[in-house]
Amino acid sequence: MTTTNLSGLVAATYTPLNDEGDLNLRAIPSMVDHLLAQGIEGLYVCGSTGEGMSLTSDERRAVAEAYVQATAKRIPVIVQVGHNSVREASQLAKHAQAIGADVISATCPSYFKVSDVATLVQTMGEVASGAPELPFYYYHIPSLTGSAIDMGEFLLQAGDRIPNLVGLKYTDTKLFDFQHCLELQDGRFDVVWGCDEMLLGALATGARAGIGSTYNIAAPLYRRIIDAFATSNVEEARRWQSKSIELIRTIGKFPFHPAMKAILEMRGLKVGGCRLPQGRLSKADAASLRNELEVIGFDVEQAGGLAPAE
Amino acid sequence: MTTTNLSGLVAATYTPLNDEGDLNLRAIPSMVDHLLAQGIEGLYVCGSTGEGMSLTSDERRAVAEAYVQATAKRIPVIVQVGHNSVREASQLAKHAQAIGADVISATCPSYFKVSDVATLVQTMGEVASGAPELPFYYYHIPSLTGSAIDMGEFLLQAGDRIPNLVGLKYTDTKLFDFQHCLELQDGRFDVVWGCDEMLLGALATGARAGIGSTYNIAAPLYRRIIDAFATSNVEEARRWQSKSIELIRTIGKFPFHPAMKAILEMRGLKVGGCRLPQGRLSKADAASLRNELEVIGFDVEQAGGLAPAE
Amino acid sequence: MTTTNLSGLVAATYTPLNDEGDLNLRAIPSMVDHLLAQGIEGLYVCGSTGEGMSLTSDERRAVAEAYVQATAKRIPVIVQVGHNSVREASQLAKHAQAIGADVISATCPSYFKVSDVATLVQTMGEVASGAPELPFYYYHIPSLTGSAIDMGEFLLQAGDRIPNLVGLKYTDTKLFDFQHCLELQDGRFDVVWGCDEMLLGALATGARAGIGSTYNIAAPLYRRIIDAFATSNVEEARRWQSKSIELIRTIGKFPFHPAMKAILEMRGLKVGGCRLPQGRLSKADAASLRNELEVIGFDVEQAGGLAPAE
Amino acid sequence: MTTTNLSGLVAATYTPLNDEGDLNLRAIPSMVDHLLAQGIEGLYVCGSTGEGMSLTSDERRAVAEAYVQATAKRIPVIVQVGHNSVREASQLAKHAQAIGADVISATCPSYFKVSDVATLVQTMGEVASGAPELPFYYYHIPSLTGSAIDMGEFLLQAGDRIPNLVGLKYTDTKLFDFQHCLELQDGRFDVVWGCDEMLLGALATGARAGIGSTYNIAAPLYRRIIDAFATSNVEEARRWQSKSIELIRTIGKFPFHPAMKAILEMRGLKVGGCRLPQGRLSKADAASLRNELEVIGFDVEQAGGLAPAE
Repeated sequence: MTTTNLSGLVAATYTPLNDEGDLNLRAIPSMVDHLLAQGIEGLYVCGSTGEGMSLTSDERRAVAEAYVQATAKRIPVIVQVGHNSVREASQLAKHAQAIGADVISATCPSYFKVSDVATLVQTMGEVASGAPELPFYYYHIPSLTGSAIDMGEFLLQAGDRIPNLVGLKYTDTKLFDFQHCLELQDGRFDVVWGCDEMLLGALATGARAGIGSTYNIAAPLYRRIIDAFATSNVEEARRWQSKSIELIRTIGKFPFHPAMKAILEMRGLKVGGCRLPQGRLSKADAASLRNELEVIGFDVEQAGGLAPAE
Repeated sequence: MTTTNLSGLVAATYTPLNDEGDLNLRAIPSMVDHLLAQGIEGLYVCGSTGEGMSLTSDERRAVAEAYVQATAKRIPVIVQVGHNSVREASQLAKHAQAIGADVISATCPSYFKVSDVATLVQTMGEVASGAPELPFYYYHIPSLTGSAIDMGEFLLQAGDRIPNLVGLKYTDTKLFDFQHCLELQDGRFDVVWGCDEMLLGALATGARAGIGSTYNIAAPLYRRIIDAFATSNVEEARRWQSKSIELIRTIGKFPFHPAMKAILEMRGLKVGGCRLPQGRLSKADAASLRNELEVIGFDVEQAGGLAPAE
Repeated sequence: MTTTNLSGLVAATYTPLNDEGDLNLRAIPSMVDHLLAQGIEGLYVCGSTGEGMSLTSDERRAVAEAYVQATAKRIPVIVQVGHNSVREASQLAKHAQAIGADVISATCPSYFKVSDVATLVQTMGEVASGAPELPFYYYHIPSLTGSAIDMGEFLLQAGDRIPNLVGLKYTDTKLFDFQHCLELQDGRFDVVWGCDEMLLGALATGARAGIGSTYNIAAPLYRRIIDAFATSNVEEARRWQSKSIELIRTIGKFPFHPAMKAILEMRGLKVGGCRLPQGRLSKADAASLRNELEVIGFDVEQAGGLAPAE
Repeated sequence: MTTTNLSGLVAATYTPLNDEGDLNLRAIPSMVDHLLAQGIEGLYVCGSTGEGMSLTSDERRAVAEAYVQATAKRIPVIVQVGHNSVREASQLAKHAQAIGADVISATCPSYFKVSDVATLVQTMGEVASGAPELPFYYYHIPSLTGSAIDMGEFLLQAGDRIPNLVGLKYTDTKLFDFQHCLELQDGRFDVVWGCDEMLLGALATGARAGIGSTYNIAAPLYRRIIDAFATSNVEEARRWQSKSIELIRTIGKFPFHPAMKAILEMRGLKVGGCRLPQGRLSKADAASLRNELEVIGFDVEQAGGLAPAE
């Protein structure tokens, strides 16, 4: 296993569906091109954004293959394999390795909750063992899994027991915990930030990469946050973060992921709606979303959402 | 679809595993015989107790088939098909119908939470449509799914939209809500009680059937609660319920389902431990459990746990 | 301290306020007469129903005095003294003893949560020590305090450390836990049921008394549950419990306690609205509530809500 | 009302108690001197840190007076007046104004939860009206109040209805929400950061002031974060934030506020332990805490905890 840490903006990709809610794999190459054109530096496939949990295992394998093929090693592809069945997760990991994915990642189960560090280490160890040659990132997202284990303790214990553990996808708002994990054992672990609307705070704290859903539609905006911060223009970085917050609050007036997919549709990307229990925006809601986005100056047809002048 | 309501004690069956954690399907016939000998009147397969969510879909299908075959129509077999992927759940439902299961049941997804009645109706409608000829029971268990929808409203709306909806497996402690659901529309719905340690209160409230895990090891005890209550011997019913509470508190000192499986092992049933994230009782803990059960007078080797004299 | 266990229906009394939201102590004698006429066997003053926490300490003392005086020893008066400040709670307990209250009761603090048994024992010990000559009931209501301590363990440890501990006001839906507490140490503790809409299940489980808010408006209905159950007419008891559930669901369409007070107002009792953050029903909402109650056959002007013919 | 926004480090002060748990007001002048010597720019009295909720109202008034007198207008004194009784809170606000406090602040009630914006506006309006001449900051701390109202909406609605509303004490980890509130209506509101271990992220996001408990013992450390960040030395700021995180994780191995008070005691400040339900560190635990602090290089006897050389 050769490890290269993730860096920059990693898009948590959407899974294209057609009007019947079936996979629309043919839309994936244009999705990938769209993301690469925006400057995305990695893809996180079948995560929360990609509705991995809402797909059948056969569909997850098909989506992972399509993204790996379409990406063709231009940027790393991370395949999320978390499943209520740890065994199924491990099999998905094995498949990801077989098809040439670059990295695997997994949540813990969400039905039976994990309530102690030792159990999380065992559970993730079993998942990660399915793809021993790939780097593994535990996907910490307590709002969806219901498991709020101390990540510092997890890394300390798992670091010695899961050979391919590389780090975390950290999707929570506790920056102090994120910083603690980043700095643990002289920065041994690659901890990737997962909350787009707090990217600036995370950068200040030491973040080197972010995985998120709104990078699908506004990567240039986030790139400006990163660049401004890197050149000590904090106020400018703050202005762009402010635009990101406004964008996310606007989208959040609607069911979030269905609204995100509606925006991608407005750009001509055939991603459809979401599977239940998330559903699809009605035409009226999509029109209303479009109006609200215009009001805040977000150009839905422009890649990245930024007007050319900016 | 012909509907016969469930009645009496329905065991939420365990899924036998071997020492490697693989399915041990050969143990299922003796499990079924053990349950029938105890007076069990129905089997609920691949539920929370049966670790349905911790199995792969292939394994779920294999377990369902083995239970259906071993039961051979002597009592109804309900197959639980809930899955984070609603599509996979619907496919499991289709399979259950194909192999001759009598009833299907499903939780909602636990990763993406269901937060309104309309979405729950849509979601369960898709699951139930996979087995249109079988009665469908929604499995309400908010402590594990995180979805605390009002069940009365769900039944009202779903009753007209899901043709094969028959009722609920109600696994919560809100007796008033349970009673409300039982009595809705002149008792149109079959609402089955899912909290063993409150069976007596549920009987008083109108329960006609219970689905639970401890019926696997102590059905005769619960039968005495039912019989005493039916003959207006409330104090006697209360004494048996008290024994059930003591039993469950004792088992609850250990990880619950691993401890339950350890008791079945003590009786010679080869069920093994649980999948992660639940795990298996250590030998020391199993011995300690055995001692604690002896202290409270529960005979682990006796079917039903009751000494012959009683 | 002489202990007489509570029995029958204890009303969690409301605190009468005038249009300015000030105490209207003159309404208390008629409240007490109304409750006695309905067959109420005890008063629980300044609890959740009585908005004890929303009153100033001076007001709590005044309300307690007014209820003690108006009741004039005809039935026991329990004064709830729980407070975020344990010291203030203890002083309120001392006052309750000085004015001739019969029993004290208290929640734990709700701001700083209590998360272990030992701390709860210490905390309640300090409160109870303020009124060493009065029986003390810990008021267990985890939905409002956020402290979900195991009550069986609490009673075991507190039984030896709090000399005047007599029992619990148990306001949760876990009947198995309630039964466990009731039966602990040969029934040493008086555990009073606090969930009106589950009274029948609690009676089956062994309840001897209930403390609740809807006994203020419908004591005769609950009395019929008790009488029917006592004479083994479970089906009749269930029908009355069913009416109670329908009543509570109807009231629950509005802010609960403001709606309860509106019903008392409809009966001519000058109780006003609730303090913030609960507020007062608008006139339109009160009229709508009245209509909804008529639809379900609840006679708001009739004491007890039952038509004479019944 | 003249408003001067808060800036820099505001210490959430501790309330000194003696061995009997009574107020030890004589310790307050030396507490104030200690804080001023460390560079503290404001005092937040009777907040969560100061156990305002655990004191009687008489005690709260006495503590507020003692802090106002000892501070003698050298820096602003904010008095926290939140109470389960909104009326009592309003009276405490009136008192704070009468004794010359500079600012008032309040949580919402924690027993009856506030679940909508309009009710929060009404409730805080009543509290703030007790001190109409003082600036008012709503104290948002959902982990303790259980009320997770959207703060942006609250400010929009309350801004027009509560004349003396100036801003928020924002004690949550949602930086995006904090930034949104800070920037609302061209920065109309003064929103003060309340999570010490995330100060750096908050500064990046636009924070101008922080209110916290660990500023009592380590203000110089936090001052270095502020100074380094102000001069674009983000890496240095991060190093100091890292030390703060390590310090807080170490203290957090013990009951937090009792451990903080133990550290102040080690410095010769007679603050005692905490009221129940928080309690006091045992001597053994205090010794163990001291050892752990030495291991991480925190000099408990040195004001600010930093060795002179640094």
